[in-house]
Formats: sequence, structure tokens, C-alpha cells
Amino acid sequence: MTKIEAINVEYYQVPLAEVLSDAKHGDHTHFELILMRIRTADGFEGVGYTYTGGKGGRAIFSLLNDEMKPLLIGQDSTEIYRIWDQLQWHFHYVGRGGLLSFAISAVDIALWDIKCKRINQPLWKVAGGVSQRVNCYAGGIDLNFSEQKLLDNIQGYIDRGFQAVKIKVGKTDYKEDVRRVEAVRNLIGPDVTFMVDANYSLTHEQAIRFSRAIEHCDIKWFEEPTIPDDYLGYAKISDATNIPLAMGENLHTIHEFTYAIAQSKLGFLQPDASNIGGITGWLQVAQLAYANNLPVCSHGMHELHVSLLASQPNAGYLEVHSFPIDQYTTRPLQIENGKACVPDLIGTGVEFDQTLLNPYLILQS
Amino acid sequence: MTKIEAINVEYYQVPLAEVLSDAKHGDHTHFELILMRIRTADGFEGVGYTYTGGKGGRAIFSLLNDEMKPLLIGQDSTEIYRIWDQLQWHFHYVGRGGLLSFAISAVDIALWDIKCKRINQPLWKVAGGVSQRVNCYAGGIDLNFSEQKLLDNIQGYIDRGFQAVKIKVGKTDYKEDVRRVEAVRNLIGPDVTFMVDANYSLTHEQAIRFSRAIEHCDIKWFEEPTIPDDYLGYAKISDATNIPLAMGENLHTIHEFTYAIAQSKLGFLQPDASNIGGITGWLQVAQLAYANNLPVCSHGMHELHVSLLASQPNAGYLEVHSFPIDQYTTRPLQIENGKACVPDLIGTGVEFDQTLLNPYLILQS
Ligand SMILES: [Mg+2]
Ligand SMILES: [Mg+2]
Repeated sequence: MTKIEAINVEYYQVPLAEVLSDAKHGDHTHFELILMRIRTADGFEGVGYTYTGGKGGRAIFSLLNDEMKPLLIGQDSTEIYRIWDQLQWHFHYVGRGGLLSFAISAVDIALWDIKCKRINQPLWKVAGGVSQRVNCYAGGIDLNFSEQKLLDNIQGYIDRGFQAVKIKVGKTDYKEDVRRVEAVRNLIGPDVTFMVDANYSLTHEQAIRFSRAIEHCDIKWFEEPTIPDDYLGYAKISDATNIPLAMGENLHTIHEFTYAIAQSKLGFLQPDASNIGGITGWLQVAQLAYANNLPVCSHGMHELHVSLLASQPNAGYLEVHSFPIDQYTTRPLQIENGKACVPDLIGTGVEFDQTLLNPYLILQS
Repeated sequence: MTKIEAINVEYYQVPLAEVLSDAKHGDHTHFELILMRIRTADGFEGVGYTYTGGKGGRAIFSLLNDEMKPLLIGQDSTEIYRIWDQLQWHFHYVGRGGLLSFAISAVDIALWDIKCKRINQPLWKVAGGVSQRVNCYAGGIDLNFSEQKLLDNIQGYIDRGFQAVKIKVGKTDYKEDVRRVEAVRNLIGPDVTFMVDANYSLTHEQAIRFSRAIEHCDIKWFEEPTIPDDYLGYAKISDATNIPLAMGENLHTIHEFTYAIAQSKLGFLQPDASNIGGITGWLQVAQLAYANNLPVCSHGMHELHVSLLASQPNAGYLEVHSFPIDQYTTRPLQIENGKACVPDLIGTGVEFDQTLLNPYLILQS
């Protein structure tokens, strides 16, 4: 009765309100959303999803629709970790991270949605059940904003109640980044938490030089100073500066996180359930973080991560991302006194509003 | 005039003569072949390709056809490294290895084919030009062969002139693997080179126990004893045993190779141009191997790798793989006195025979 009976896959391209740019991905005009709906013989429906910054979504649709769907039909929806592991090995030759992790994430989130619905509980309780409020920050993709627009944007976050903000850095001349960081700190005053994110655009030398130049601005973390593959480079940067380092959005296997924790001297981990293997993968990283006495944060899809952070005792900061996926759900993220509130919906807490999403549907099965 | 004017992508499923099994990928009934044909304004056509063990090929087709083709049209076909780097960054968020590396490989091989044709030279010269003969070995996917069939298969390799052979290991009871290794060594005598490959199926403890148990069989290398992500685990196995370790078919970025070389105490590197970023990626690894005083070998697609090994002074052994891609070309691999001979064809040396391939075409653009 708990068998998987039917699966549908949907691929959307959702336009952004304005073109967003960072140091390494160039312009974002839209994000891609790939949904997997899984129905069981006993009538439960789970919705899983992943997203991208605009590239690769059709390949994820192919993995989900052409390859995983036939493999999943008839399997027991309650055997989540076995299915997760099966998918990792079945596609191992073309996998280990990369696009495969995005596809597995969508499957896994759908199965967790069913798991929660089956026991009539919200995700934040099923995954651990620690708190109903989590620290959060607003992160802009604002590298190409003029300084005035950058400050207006930050002021907008403050006006919406955020008590922590993050900006992009990685200008051709790092002194311009320093000026922008100083201007933001000046605007928000000493009490608002403030992070910077270089999207791995810097060399070791540039990262160290820049980090030292903004130490006086009380920066919570310096995110992705250099390429995520460079575990020991992170350690070198960490040793040379006083600002803690953060990464995770580009680590797509538990082994990559294991190496990063062991070798990179990070202060914060930022797994993203949409590309680390879903809720199963995110919780693996959260537990690895706990074991290593580190806070676990998140990247992207805040409408889901709010429940995951709320499930963990070592929760750090929820990123409220510039891709407003939550605006296409029945329950956009709520902020109260600077904290993000867990949805009390049964399931993952993410229910898409098809009236809003349907105009952007490109492919479906 | 050297601009890319037209691109076609083709996806084939080529059946194997019999079902082949190894310790971790299960049964192989066919392999997938994904071709990219690039034509330039001045009339050159380059053919690039990648392959898989049967899964993920449609996602690679999507990456090549839906995403890379529009990006490549109009670019200068002679700017190969710039295009390679552009593709890595453009798709970075869904990439860094995995399926993206397979797709980039097909593009890169097509561009190298054009590069060679433009100067009217064979690949083995254009890529370095060291030798016309390379050491090679026959590698079976033979884990589930009975011992008799295993021995008959090995005898077949010897009869075809091979002077080096490799078998799969990873049976439930490692003592059965030991008996099979001993039986093969007994069959081939002391002078034939002999390797084993566990397809990363063993724990540290199992790998060390097994390696010690076959040390008396004069084993050239022990390939992928454990998961490729476990760089330091390889070092531990290497420290505890006398048989050199080999890996590479599952390392899909130059950074993964860099870590493996620095941390895994390997004896042999086995990059595969179909999943390490094409000829550009394979040569990067070859040069890293040279810098670290290691031989560079290969995995799969022997019809192409024969020219790459022949281009390098630190060439190790060419794997003659069980996926007979070369049988679908105009010039199947030739062995003379136990060595593989470079094709003297202009270009990569790989020209597909469409009469043979066409029956297996599934998708094309
Ligand atoms: Mg970031
Ligand atoms: Mg192998």
C-alpha cells in the first residue's frame, strides 16, 4: 500500500523581477524549477523539487523523467535511505555530485513530504524538532548594483525586519568592494549581522588581501572566497585572516563536505537540500557539522530550509535567497522579530501555488 | 572563417554481445554513445563523443543539444581552451564533474578533431608526438563469469596477442577472488602483466586483507579498491600493502586528480577523455602526472586514448575496454607484438562507420 504508483515531472522557467549578477555566474534572468510529484498506492502525494540559476534544468528533467521514474515506480515510498543510496550507486558512473545530486534531491524531498504526511507532522518536527524560529539573513545577488542601489536594497531588507544581511563582492578592483562593505556597515550600524560572498572569484592572494581590508567592518563570515575544490586553499586563507570562512552551496556530496570540514578550516557550513541529495543529504551534513562542533546554515530554497534549520540544535543562519521560490507557494516565508518562522503545514511545508506557477511550465510528463 | 557554423548531436544505445557485470555498476546490457558533430565556416567537420555504461546519456544529449549548441554557434573553433574554460564556468553551478564533464568532453574532442584536420596531422602528433606504439592490456567486465569462463576469456586475450590482462574482483567472499587471481596467474605464466580492479566495492579492511592475499601473484596494480572520493583511504591501503594502487575513471575534474595525486599515494593514473573534459582535460592530467613522476594510463575509449598515450613520454598502459566502441569505427584498434598501434588518420583517428552505428540511433538534432 505504501508503494510508489505514479510519478510526474515538471520543468519551469521562472523569470526574475530584474537581472541579477554575481562574480562568477554572470547574469541571472530566471531560475529553473524542476518538480517531481510522487503518488503512493494508499493515496499520499509528495512534492519534491530542485532549482538552478538558469542552466542544466532540462538535463535534470531528463534524469528524473527518463531514468529515475521507471526505477522508482513500484518501490516502497517509506524506504527513503535505501532509495537514496540506490540512486547514488545506480548512476555512480555519471554521478557523484553534479547534476545527479540535483535530481536525487527532488526525489528525496518528495519522499520526505510523503513521510511527514503519513504521520501527519510538519517537517521541522519529523527531522528533529528543535525550534520554531531560526536566525536568518537576506542575501542579494547585487554585485552589479550601483553603490546607491546596493544601499537602497539593504535598507529594504532592514525595513522588512531582517537583522542580518549579505552582499556580493568580487569587483575588478577590490578597493571598490572595500568601499561598498564600509558603506553598508555604515548604513546598518554596529548591531546588524553582516556577511560577504565572493562566489569563488578570488585567488588566494586576492582573498587574503581583501579579507584583511574589511576586518574592521565586523564581518560574520566570508563566503566562498575561492573555488570550492580548493580545500587547502581555504585553510590557507583562514590562517591568514580573522574573518571565518563559509561554504557549501557547491559541495554536492557528503564526501566533499567531509574533506571541506577536515581540511578547509571553515566557520560555517552551507548545504543546500536541492543539490546535496535532498533532506537526507542535508541532514547528513547537519550531523557532520554537529559532530565537528560547527553551525549548519543553508543556501537557497529558504521555504524548505527554514524547517530543516528549525530541526537542528546547531542551526546557524538561514539564507533568504534572491530566487523567490517561496513566492510561488501557498505560504511565503514569514519573518518575525528578525527570525524566520517555521510553517506549521503537514509535510515539507512547501505547497506550490499552481495558479502562480503554471504560466512558466515548459515541459511535463 | 574558422567560426562554428553548425552542430548536430546524436544519441545511440549500442547493445553488448553479452551482459557484463562488475562489483558496483551491476549489469551492463548496452553502452550509450553521444556524438557531437561540429562544422566550421571554412568547411571542416570535427566529431566528438562521450559514452556511458548505459545511464545518463539522455541528460548528456540535453546538455549538448539544448544548452551548449546555442552557446557554441558562432564561436571561433580554434580557441579550444577558452571554450573549455567557458563551459566549465557557464555551467559551474550544476557542474564541476559529473554529467557536465561528459558533455564538455564531447565538445572538446570535436574541436581537437578540427584542430588536427586543419593542420593535416594525426592526434598523436598534435598532442605531443612521442611514439607510435603503446603498452596496452585487455580488461574484462568479468566478475560474474564462472572461473572456467574467466580463464577462457583471458586465454582469448592472450591468443589475440595481449601481453597484459586485467580482471574484476569484489566477490562476496574475498577468498574466491584470491582463487580466481591465482588461477589466472597460473594460466598466463609469470611473464604476462596482470592487474585487478575492484570497482571501489571494498572497505579499507577488505581491500588491505585482499591485497595482502594476492601479493604473491605479482599484480601490477590494484585498481579502485575503495570509493574514489576517499583520497586518504587510498593512502591508508597503499601504506598497508605492496601492490601499487590505480584510479582515475571516476575523477572528473583536474582538482579531483590534484587531490588524488597529493593524498592517495597512487602508482598509476587513469583519466578518461570522455569524462575528464576531453583531450584538453586528459592532457592536463597527463602533465600533472609527469610533474609528479607518475605514468598516465587510460580508461575506456581505447580507439581515442591510443593516440593520447602515444603523445606522452610518461605513458603507462592503454586499457582495451570491454565496450567495443572501436568496432563501430573505420579503423578498429590494432595490436602488434602486444602493443597498440596509433592510427595514422588525420584528426583524432576516430571515424565512425555510420552503416554500423545507424541501427542504434535513438535521438538526433
Ligand atoms: Mg553564496
Ligand atoms: Mg576500472
